[in-house]
Amino acid sequence: VGSPKRPPAPQGAPGSEDAAVEGLAGTLSTAFGPAPPGQIWIGDDAAILPSPPGRLVLATDAVVEGVHVDLGLVAPSDAGWKAVASTLSDIGAMGARPLYSLVSVCTPAAADLDAVMAGVAEASVEWRCPVVGGDLSSARALVVTVAVAGVLDGPEPAITRAGAAPGDTLCVTGPLGSSAAGLRLLRSIAAGDRPVGDDPVAERLVGAHRRPRALLVEGAAARSAAAAAMIDVSDGLAIDLHRLADASGVGFSLDRVPVAPGATLAEALGGGEDYELVIATPAPDRLDAALVAAGAPPSIRIGRCVADRAERKLEGAPLARLGWEHRFGE
Amino acid sequence: VGSPKRPPAPQGAPGSEDAAVEGLAGTLSTAFGPAPPGQIWIGDDAAILPSPPGRLVLATDAVVEGVHVDLGLVAPSDAGWKAVASTLSDIGAMGARPLYSLVSVCTPAAADLDAVMAGVAEASVEWRCPVVGGDLSSARALVVTVAVAGVLDGPEPAITRAGAAPGDTLCVTGPLGSSAAGLRLLRSIAAGDRPVGDDPVAERLVGAHRRPRALLVEGAAARSAAAAAMIDVSDGLAIDLHRLADASGVGFSLDRVPVAPGATLAEALGGGEDYELVIATPAPDRLDAALVAAGAPPSIRIGRCVADRAERKLEGAPLARLGWEHRFGE
Repeated sequence: VGSPKRPPAPQGAPGSEDAAVEGLAGTLSTAFGPAPPGQIWIGDDAAILPSPPGRLVLATDAVVEGVHVDLGLVAPSDAGWKAVASTLSDIGAMGARPLYSLVSVCTPAAADLDAVMAGVAEASVEWRCPVVGGDLSSARALVVTVAVAGVLDGPEPAITRAGAAPGDTLCVTGPLGSSAAGLRLLRSIAAGDRPVGDDPVAERLVGAHRRPRALLVEGAAARSAAAAAMIDVSDGLAIDLHRLADASGVGFSLDRVPVAPGATLAEALGGGEDYELVIATPAPDRLDAALVAAGAPPSIRIGRCVADRAERKLEGAPLARLGWEHRFGE
Repeated sequence: VGSPKRPPAPQGAPGSEDAAVEGLAGTLSTAFGPAPPGQIWIGDDAAILPSPPGRLVLATDAVVEGVHVDLGLVAPSDAGWKAVASTLSDIGAMGARPLYSLVSVCTPAAADLDAVMAGVAEASVEWRCPVVGGDLSSARALVVTVAVAGVLDGPEPAITRAGAAPGDTLCVTGPLGSSAAGLRLLRSIAAGDRPVGDDPVAERLVGAHRRPRALLVEGAAARSAAAAAMIDVSDGLAIDLHRLADASGVGFSLDRVPVAPGATLAEALGGGEDYELVIATPAPDRLDAALVAAGAPPSIRIGRCVADRAERKLEGAPLARLGWEHRFGE
């Protein structure tokens, strides 16, 4: 009620919130079928679902226009995909399994709403995590917020950021920097500095920026196989590794940082949004066997945890707390 | 990574996201104590919680600056409170009980972040629903998105919008229009048309706008006592009643609309954000007995459901689908 009232809209009037909800419920129902008997998904005040058969896992992430996505470079559907993928990545980084999502879209434009939800639906189908509810609102800039409820199966603990011990091997599930490099390429193309071209490396990097992947299989495999601590690379290897070390009360010494083909070392260290998993483990061979058994590549070993909390090194030199952090009050 | 990188921030540097998360975790830990053993709340990739001892209930709601709140008239803490209250209201409108919340704050300013979270903490304490996780981001305008996981205790069904039958009595838990009237008063005061004064009716209306209440006790009592359908008045009685009638496949005939002292009939019908519950029941006396036993006032009977879906009347005249709907594509 904070802004002037609009004329009343009859049920299902084009452009009304109820019509938008009906349309989205239709889209999502095409993707997932109707809610199973006894469950309530979209269209009531809240969703009603079976309680998870294990511990409940909750995570949320927002994608903000002008901060996480530049809608001059990527599509609104990419923003929807990214909001789902980044939240699922948080679930995966505990070794847990997603079950249901809620999606809140604040947008200035109807066209964006449909496109955003198309991307949300694609990602939701990709990782089999149905959208069971949400909220729609107008806004001056696009904000897509996803909350996911998941389950931690079995009695074993979740893999937190806090379990690493001195001597543990530090591994990463893949090379880094693709998303930041993809953004750099999109900016060059938009500025006319670079032809769109037909370069498979460039295509892969742009794809990594537009459609990042949540490594749910890898996270679950790591939990099953001696992972001691885990975090997903959402803000950049350097800062996320510092976070893991802070939580575990250890330092680290890195021998190398795997850089994705076409990316720079700076992008690999500080770019963020790669969503690869950083894993500390006392048994890297067991970890790799579990990853390979799950259909993923073996991990890349990048260094080890050390007892001196203050030691934070790459190839013997101090590694700054480098990466994407939101800063406030500026 | 969508906007230029800022200089790296050391751990806990003022203004950094990690420092903000630490500060908020401290505030919330003061409110709720630390996470119980075996649980993980704020500070890791996701929260780990006991699975609810009944069906899982999920809802989300966003409060957007310039749409749901005018920060020239209310405080950022009010935005935080409202985001929690409106989401809890959705849980209550199913007859369910909230357990945990996730809070995503997108804000341009650090001062707003602290104030928003102070309001979130107040509402979370008020309804005993701890914040177990969230997300912080910079943004051009404030958006607070809350997701709540709750539980539907016992084997009885949730009270949806869809259960009303012809002949059911329509009740509302209280008079309507307070929030919209409070907004009107705040605008008059800001425009200098009205002194701030010392008027208890005005104070109550402004309070209803700034700090709406989620009727969780009333929702649970209604579920225990023959409520057939229920919805909370978030967008306005007229539109929310149409939604209940649409979902139930009935019409309605209203004898009266209870208007809060100091509010107008238009505000009661179309203002929204009152979060009173509209309940259809075949046994209004049982409903009132349960409400009174729970410490709430008896309901106000406003009319009845009719078999003709097309009949939507107030005092014999057609009642338009009137209220706050977000419209897109304009």
